[in-house]
Amino acid sequence: MGLFITPNLLDMLKLMNADENKSKRLVSLMKKRGFIQPAFELYGGVAGLYDYGPLGGRLRRNVISKWINHWISLGNIVEIDSPTITPEPVLKASGHIGAFNDYASECKFCSSIYRSDHLLEEVHNNPDSLDNLSLDEELSKHKIPCPSCKKSGWLPSEPLNLMFSTTIGASKGGRRAYMRPETAQGMFLQYPSIYRHFRGKLPFGAVQVGKGYRNEISPRQGMIRLREFNMAELEYFIDPQKDIDYNLNSWDHIELKLVPDPINGEIKELKCTIYDAVENKIIRDKTVGWFMIKTFELMIELGINSDLIRFRQHETDEMAHYATDCWDLEIFGSYGWIECVGIANRGCYDLEAHQKVSKTNDLKAWRDYENELEIDKIICSPVQSIIGPHFKGKSKLISNHLETLDALEIKFPYSTTIDGEEITIEENMVEIKEVKSIERGEWFTPHVVEPAFGIDRIIWHILEHSYTEISKENDDYYTILALKNKICPIDFSVYPLFEKDGLDEMAKKIIFSIRDIKGINVNYDGTKSIGRRYARGDEIGVPYAITVDHQTLEDNTVTLRERDSQEQKRMHIEDLLKFISQY
Amino acid sequence: MGLFITPNLLDMLKLMNADENKSKRLVSLMKKRGFIQPAFELYGGVAGLYDYGPLGGRLRRNVISKWINHWISLGNIVEIDSPTITPEPVLKASGHIGAFNDYASECKFCSSIYRSDHLLEEVHNNPDSLDNLSLDEELSKHKIPCPSCKKSGWLPSEPLNLMFSTTIGASKGGRRAYMRPETAQGMFLQYPSIYRHFRGKLPFGAVQVGKGYRNEISPRQGMIRLREFNMAELEYFIDPQKDIDYNLNSWDHIELKLVPDPINGEIKELKCTIYDAVENKIIRDKTVGWFMIKTFELMIELGINSDLIRFRQHETDEMAHYATDCWDLEIFGSYGWIECVGIANRGCYDLEAHQKVSKTNDLKAWRDYENELEIDKIICSPVQSIIGPHFKGKSKLISNHLETLDALEIKFPYSTTIDGEEITIEENMVEIKEVKSIERGEWFTPHVVEPAFGIDRIIWHILEHSYTEISKENDDYYTILALKNKICPIDFSVYPLFEKDGLDEMAKKIIFSIRDIKGINVNYDGTKSIGRRYARGDEIGVPYAITVDHQTLEDNTVTLRERDSQEQKRMHIEDLLKFISQY
Repeated sequence: MGLFITPNLLDMLKLMNADENKSKRLVSLMKKRGFIQPAFELYGGVAGLYDYGPLGGRLRRNVISKWINHWISLGNIVEIDSPTITPEPVLKASGHIGAFNDYASECKFCSSIYRSDHLLEEVHNNPDSLDNLSLDEELSKHKIPCPSCKKSGWLPSEPLNLMFSTTIGASKGGRRAYMRPETAQGMFLQYPSIYRHFRGKLPFGAVQVGKGYRNEISPRQGMIRLREFNMAELEYFIDPQKDIDYNLNSWDHIELKLVPDPINGEIKELKCTIYDAVENKIIRDKTVGWFMIKTFELMIELGINSDLIRFRQHETDEMAHYATDCWDLEIFGSYGWIECVGIANRGCYDLEAHQKVSKTNDLKAWRDYENELEIDKIICSPVQSIIGPHFKGKSKLISNHLETLDALEIKFPYSTTIDGEEITIEENMVEIKEVKSIERGEWFTPHVVEPAFGIDRIIWHILEHSYTEISKENDDYYTILALKNKICPIDFSVYPLFEKDGLDEMAKKIIFSIRDIKGINVNYDGTKSIGRRYARGDEIGVPYAITVDHQTLEDNTVTLRERDSQEQKRMHIEDLLKFISQY
Repeated sequence: MGLFITPNLLDMLKLMNADENKSKRLVSLMKKRGFIQPAFELYGGVAGLYDYGPLGGRLRRNVISKWINHWISLGNIVEIDSPTITPEPVLKASGHIGAFNDYASECKFCSSIYRSDHLLEEVHNNPDSLDNLSLDEELSKHKIPCPSCKKSGWLPSEPLNLMFSTTIGASKGGRRAYMRPETAQGMFLQYPSIYRHFRGKLPFGAVQVGKGYRNEISPRQGMIRLREFNMAELEYFIDPQKDIDYNLNSWDHIELKLVPDPINGEIKELKCTIYDAVENKIIRDKTVGWFMIKTFELMIELGINSDLIRFRQHETDEMAHYATDCWDLEIFGSYGWIECVGIANRGCYDLEAHQKVSKTNDLKAWRDYENELEIDKIICSPVQSIIGPHFKGKSKLISNHLETLDALEIKFPYSTTIDGEEITIEENMVEIKEVKSIERGEWFTPHVVEPAFGIDRIIWHILEHSYTEISKENDDYYTILALKNKICPIDFSVYPLFEKDGLDEMAKKIIFSIRDIKGINVNYDGTKSIGRRYARGDEIGVPYAITVDHQTLEDNTVTLRERDSQEQKRMHIEDLLKFISQY
């Protein structure tokens, strides 16, 4: 373990081999080739809404599949799916109504509205953590100008709820609802079903991938801040009293960059293994630590540059009050360090909130005691000779009810409603007595560790980290999108050298054989020079190009060109198919 | 080709081996085992919103993957993804605002509101096709009682818009938007990107899978009529002047059940091949026919019983005015015949509607003429000696503009805005002359064939058709969910005969080896008797159970039990792994 100093932004950009216009060129390539682009452009566009195009759609699906398989293959995690439309009471219980707000400031002069914290980004380290009074104070202290009219003067900041609201039911008497701000609630509400599926054996988890919604005040930053986004969340339910061995030292070959919660205001960056970080209590929660390293692994598999990943611990005043530890995985790109994953131990907050509001008792787990307990209990034992004749058919129900009461708390005459009927128990109907009872275990509310992923932000950084410009004759910027295999939208391209002499039919024949190999996406391209076609393939990240020429017709060999090395080798079609089936 | 009479409902149910309570038992199983269940039950539930649980989530993903791969593997179809939040102008152009309505009738006595056509289902063949006046007439003629208060008397039916509305932008001045009623619009708006991707070579298509929303008046029928549903749509763009050979006779071994548009009110059912149906113009559009058979193929692969599928042609007054042919794939289940897929030739309606409203010209395709055309054109040729000195730097732009004008239509002095400036052309600045021009082709708006799938309805019928009850000792209803391989949520279960003597560790070792084989979902179950575990696996559709017993420890063999035959055979673990890798 050692101190580590993240290079300053300029040096980081150098590390990315980026000049200031590189991300503009990337954005233009993404649009031109159909990866991502602002949505509804035909109608002038809508800020914060994006489309995935013919290549981006497949990239998105590949990233999501990899994400799901990474977690599902652990064996104790299942996928669920719940509605995006969420009735109001659920979001009241979860705390989103009332709290899911950003502060907005209105310019005194031109009435433009901005997120208060965004206005302070250049003068404050962590404006997101400020309350409304501090926001107003900072705005005035630094004389922050309005981005629209350039004058400086702000009305007091106001909280704005960031959920899209709607109404369930087309006719009168509809119910207020919101588009979900996160996928997590669906998993909390399905907890009984997940608990049953795993037959009560903690720990277990559920994932959900789908759309989340956040009605941003003034979205900017392209794919980073969207009004509708692809989320992927995992809720892992654990028994807080049980120690789990995660074998954290199996990752001793990996050093993570950590930015822990600053102590005495001093930010200290560390580079250390996950084992050391947990052992030294830099990471307070072991399960959080385990998800951090598993998440790091996944990011590398997806094609994020490991040098451009760091984990930042939430400061105490930034963290939700119920959370015991929370780390963000941040990725560096042209927008600076961006939070792409949040990993938090949320305690029993969510499940208890839903139990309280829905007045149910269904979100619990059973824990066996290590040794059975013999407990002395004082109970109200029903006197059957009186209860029986008095309550007749109901006497059984009433007896059962009496046994659940705490005899020390009860006062007679005692009234309650049983089976819809108000009944009154007189003191002579029960006998207060002490009994021995064997208790084998207890019900408790599990704790939840939640890794929450912003898929669009991750995809953006995959693209940025894969985007490589090299110099090549005649080309100012020869572009290679060095996407990882299986993540790239197209796995293989087949090019006939010319679209004649039977070369095109041969190419199509090869394509049909490749399509028989499951999960491989292959395409055909026959127009323009072969060099142009290689370039077109390189800039969208096709890892391998297969070229069919006249020799192919003679001896069934083709050339296989590797994107990253740009090297070619000649091989027999049968060997090619073998290679592809192991791809 | 021959006439075909669909058995009546009762006989159909017999064909499904169903009694009236079978679907209730299925629903209860689905809930108990975590396939599907009403959402937000902790909060009393919301009609028309469903959850996919720990097993249903995976089933849903498998069905969607199969759906996507079925189409993508054709080679000229790509996947895209667009926002579910859709700004109002898009849905005005598409015709959803104003037309995406159901008629609702309000009871005069108790003010309950119902869909007018649903009230008529028992007395009318196709109430969905009636207009408001006919609906009112039928309601009164048949004295339809109110389902709530049982009295009969209805106010005139009113159209209700069925879209969920919301507002983009959290602050004042937000824009009106709706949750998309279909995924199709996203593909029409992305047409320019898709056209570029395929370098303008028609035919090509795009698919999108995602949530669609319909704010139903009174949803019922479980998974059949949802307010938020999983949709999968394909838009196939074709040149209506080009004949495509779909090799329809490759499906001559399949006879489809067809219910064509009734001629003279007589409904005639047919059983014939797709080739004959197109050849005899029963199916009016060849591309529609091709998608019908490809869709039929897919349904069989997903596990729908081929005997319980029919295609019903839309009646002329039921079909959208712009559509030239439209067939529904209907599946029979406990709700009767239910439309699960609609396959329509929508002509150029959608693309033209968007071009008209957005005032763009971007949704076109280029068609080469078979032979180049030499055309006589009368043009306004700019007189450079006057234009040049007069307009200076702008003269080039103005000359280009003049060449695009129809000289016969123009009147001088002619005014227009060029590059933001109002300019006026006098008669002496141009020379009207006839020139020869070579035209190589033309721009046109492609036609669209759209197969649109209701994924939840299909999943419901997969479950119904797979759900099998057999008699077995001690079991009133021994249940086997005969899901197809690869569709089922769990592919293999591993059971140690007892959880002791090292059998459990051995079982887990086998599971780890299986997890190395990609795409296989395997689970472990160690509790209760082996018979109980087989039964638990059978009722959720696990195709194969692997049992580890004491012999396994001696000779590395296990038993493999097949769900459908319930037969077991003993095999070496290595052979087992080979079998699984070919699964």
